[in-house]
Amino acid sequence: MEASPAHVVIVGGGFAGLWAARALRSAQVRITLVDRGNHHLFQPLLYQVATAGLSAPDIAAPLRQILRKQKNVQVQLATVSRIDVAAREVELDHAEGVRRLRYDYLLLASGATHAYFGNAHWARHAPGLKTLDDALDLRRKLLLAFERAEAATDPAERDAWLSFAIIGGGPTGVELAGTLAEIARHTLGGEFRNIDPARARVRLVEAGPRVLSSFPEDLSDRARTQLEKLGVEVQTGAPVEDITEAGYRRGGEFVTARTVVWAAGVAASPLGQCLGVPLDRAGRVRVRPDLSIPGHPEVFVAGDLAAIARPDGRPVPGVAPAAKQMGRHVADTIRARLDGRRGDGAPFRYRDFGNLATIGRMAAVVDLGRLRFSGMLAWWFWLVAHLFFLIGFRNRSVVLLNWSVAYWTHQRAARIILGGDDRSDTK
Amino acid sequence: MEASPAHVVIVGGGFAGLWAARALRSAQVRITLVDRGNHHLFQPLLYQVATAGLSAPDIAAPLRQILRKQKNVQVQLATVSRIDVAAREVELDHAEGVRRLRYDYLLLASGATHAYFGNAHWARHAPGLKTLDDALDLRRKLLLAFERAEAATDPAERDAWLSFAIIGGGPTGVELAGTLAEIARHTLGGEFRNIDPARARVRLVEAGPRVLSSFPEDLSDRARTQLEKLGVEVQTGAPVEDITEAGYRRGGEFVTARTVVWAAGVAASPLGQCLGVPLDRAGRVRVRPDLSIPGHPEVFVAGDLAAIARPDGRPVPGVAPAAKQMGRHVADTIRARLDGRRGDGAPFRYRDFGNLATIGRMAAVVDLGRLRFSGMLAWWFWLVAHLFFLIGFRNRSVVLLNWSVAYWTHQRAARIILGGDDRSDTK
Repeated sequence: MEASPAHVVIVGGGFAGLWAARALRSAQVRITLVDRGNHHLFQPLLYQVATAGLSAPDIAAPLRQILRKQKNVQVQLATVSRIDVAAREVELDHAEGVRRLRYDYLLLASGATHAYFGNAHWARHAPGLKTLDDALDLRRKLLLAFERAEAATDPAERDAWLSFAIIGGGPTGVELAGTLAEIARHTLGGEFRNIDPARARVRLVEAGPRVLSSFPEDLSDRARTQLEKLGVEVQTGAPVEDITEAGYRRGGEFVTARTVVWAAGVAASPLGQCLGVPLDRAGRVRVRPDLSIPGHPEVFVAGDLAAIARPDGRPVPGVAPAAKQMGRHVADTIRARLDGRRGDGAPFRYRDFGNLATIGRMAAVVDLGRLRFSGMLAWWFWLVAHLFFLIGFRNRSVVLLNWSVAYWTHQRAARIILGGDDRSDTK
Repeated sequence: MEASPAHVVIVGGGFAGLWAARALRSAQVRITLVDRGNHHLFQPLLYQVATAGLSAPDIAAPLRQILRKQKNVQVQLATVSRIDVAAREVELDHAEGVRRLRYDYLLLASGATHAYFGNAHWARHAPGLKTLDDALDLRRKLLLAFERAEAATDPAERDAWLSFAIIGGGPTGVELAGTLAEIARHTLGGEFRNIDPARARVRLVEAGPRVLSSFPEDLSDRARTQLEKLGVEVQTGAPVEDITEAGYRRGGEFVTARTVVWAAGVAASPLGQCLGVPLDRAGRVRVRPDLSIPGHPEVFVAGDLAAIARPDGRPVPGVAPAAKQMGRHVADTIRARLDGRRGDGAPFRYRDFGNLATIGRMAAVVDLGRLRFSGMLAWWFWLVAHLFFLIGFRNRSVVLLNWSVAYWTHQRAARIILGGDDRSDTK
C-alpha cells in the first residue's frame, strides 16, 4: 500500500506562498493554500490603484484561477486564528465555523501589515496601504479631498483640504507623493471652478536623513531632486510626533493637512507570534538559515514575515523577488527531504538583482549594483520590469494600455469614488 | 450693463442630465450639475461589473473630466435634500453642510432606484443593481457563494450555496441570469476541488407570462430558448411571494437559494415628490408634452424619472437613448426660450431606434422594428452598439480587450472579492 502524500499547508497567497505552491507542482504532496482573500495581489503596483491609475482587478488575479491546473493544490478562503506547532495543526476561521487542519509541513507566509509604533490611534487619520481595500479607501480619500476643497467657502478650509502629507520616505511613500503631485499638477487641470488643484501642497515626511534609505546615497539625492521637480516638498530628519484630523506635528510645529497617508512602518503579521519562537523588533520570525524555525524543521517562514540576514550581515529586504526566492527555497527543501536527497537543510541565499523605485511620470531610480541610473531611462526600465512580472497576459495588456493612455493624456482611468456614506463613516 | 446669464441647475449626471448639459455648451447660461457621485455611469454595462467581466472604472468616467472643457458648467458633488419650486431653490447636502442654490431653470434627472413593492425587508436578502457600489456588492456576493459551497461539509448546505435566483425577467434579469450560468458552466471550471460549479442552478423568475416583455413575443420566446441552452431555468407566470435568507416562495412552494438577486422593480427617485405635481404609480413625474411640469414652465423632468407617453399611447421606455433625447430636448427648449425663438414648448418626440438585450456569450435579441434577429449575429450587433456608445477611447479599448480575452478564454478579469468582514456584515 502506498503511503498517502505528505500534506503541505501554506498560509498566504502572496509572492512567497504562491511561488512555493507552484514550485511543488510535480512533488508527491497534497497542498492546502489558505488566504483571507481570493486573490494574489501584485503589491508593487498597489500605489497605482490608490492613485487611480489602475483599477483593482488590473493588479490582482484569483488564486483559484492561477492554480486551477495544479491538481495537488486546494485553495481555502479562510482566516488562520491559531497555529499549534506541537500538534501540527492550523486552526481556520471559515464562514462556516472553526476547523482544524493537520499538516506535515507548514509554510507561514502571511506577510506584513502597517505599524504605527505604539500610536494605533493615528490609523484613523493616516491610513496605510497594504491591501486592495486599503488602496480603494485611499483613492476615495484623495479624490474626495479635492471635492471638499472645491466645495469649501472658507479659504483656510480650502487650503487645508489641498494639503496632503505622506508619512514615510520609503518606496511606497515616494511613489505616492510623486504620483499625487502629478495628479494635482496635471490630471485634474481644468476640472474645477473654485480651486486650482495645481496649488495643492504635497509633503513627504521622512524621519531619517534621506528618502529611499535602502538605495545608495547618490540615488536618494537624485530621487529627492526629482520629487521636488514634480512639486513635492520633502522634509527629512525628524519623525512626526502626532497626527490628528487636522494635520501632523513634527519638530514641535503643527502642519495643517486634512489628508495624511501612512507609509512609514511595517510590522510582521501577528501570526508569527503563534509559533513560540523568537521574533525581531518588527515582529518577524528569526528563522534558521534554511528558513525553518528552531526546534521544528517541518515549519518554515518566508516572505515579509521572515527575518534573515545576508552573509554580509545586511537583512534580506522585504521585496517581491526575495519573497519568491524564499518560497521556492522552502519548496526545494521539502522536496529534498521527501526524497531523502541532499539539499535538505541547505541555507537560503538571496540573489539580489537590484533595487528599483519609481517616483512619478518619467522619474525613477535604478540600482543594479555597479550600474545606477535615474530619470526617464530608469522609469522605462522600471515599467518594463513591472509589466514583465505582472501575472497574466490580459493584465499586462490592460496595464500597458492604461499607462500608454495616461502617458499621452495625463489622464488616470480609475478616478471613480466608490463607497456610500455608510462606508465613509467607518473608514 | 449686460444681464448675468440664466442659471440652469441640473440634478443628476446620468444620460438625461449629462446630455442636457452638453447640449447647452454654447448657450448663454451658467450651469450647475449636481450629482451624489463623481462619475457618469454607463448603466447598460453595469451587469458586467456585477458578474466580474469588467471593473468599475471601465464603465464610468468622472463628470468633471467629461465636462472639463465646457466652461459654463460647474459640477457639484452633493445630495439634493429638498426642492422649493415656489422659491426656485434647490437645497443641497454637502459634506460642509446645507446650502441653497437658486435657479432660473431646473432639470430634475435623478433617475430610478429599486422597488420592492411594499416588501422593503426583501432588500437585505435580494439586493438590486443600480449603482457601481451595488454591482461590487453583488460581485462579492456571487463569488462568495461558490466559496461557501466549496467550504461546506453538509451536502444540503452545499447545494443551497450553489442555488441562485434572479427575480425579474427584464433585460437586467436576463443578462444576469445568462452571464451567471456562463460563469458557473465555463469560467469557474476546474478551479474548485470539492464542488463542480457547473452543477449550480440558476433560476430566472418572472411574474408575467414571458421574459423581456418589452420585446415582441417571438423574441421573448427565442430569449427563453437561449437562456435554457445556457443552463438557466426560466420560471414565468407567478410572482415571488416571499424572500428570505434561505430562498424564495412562489406559488406556495419554497425554493432554496442562498443567493437571490432583485431585478424586478424600478421606482422613480424620491425627489419627484418634492415638486408637488402628480406622479404615476411608479413615482414618476407626469410631465407636460415639452417635459416641463404643470404650473412651472421653468422646471423640467427627464430620463427615468419622467412619465410620458408616445403618440400611440405606449410609454417612452426607461432606456438610455430615451434619456439622452429628453436631455437634449430640454436643452433645446431652454435655448429657444432664452432666445425668444419658436421651439419653446415644442413637444418631445421619442425616436425609437430599436431595442437590444443580451443574454450571454454569443446570445442576444435585437428588435429594430421590421428587422428582428437573435443569436450570434444579435450578440455582435449588441456588442458593437454598446462599444460605440461607451464614453472615451480608453474605456472602449479596455472593454474591447476584456471582451476579446473573455471570449477566447472564458475568463472574466474582475473576479476579485473586495470588502473586509466589517463591510460584509452591513451589506
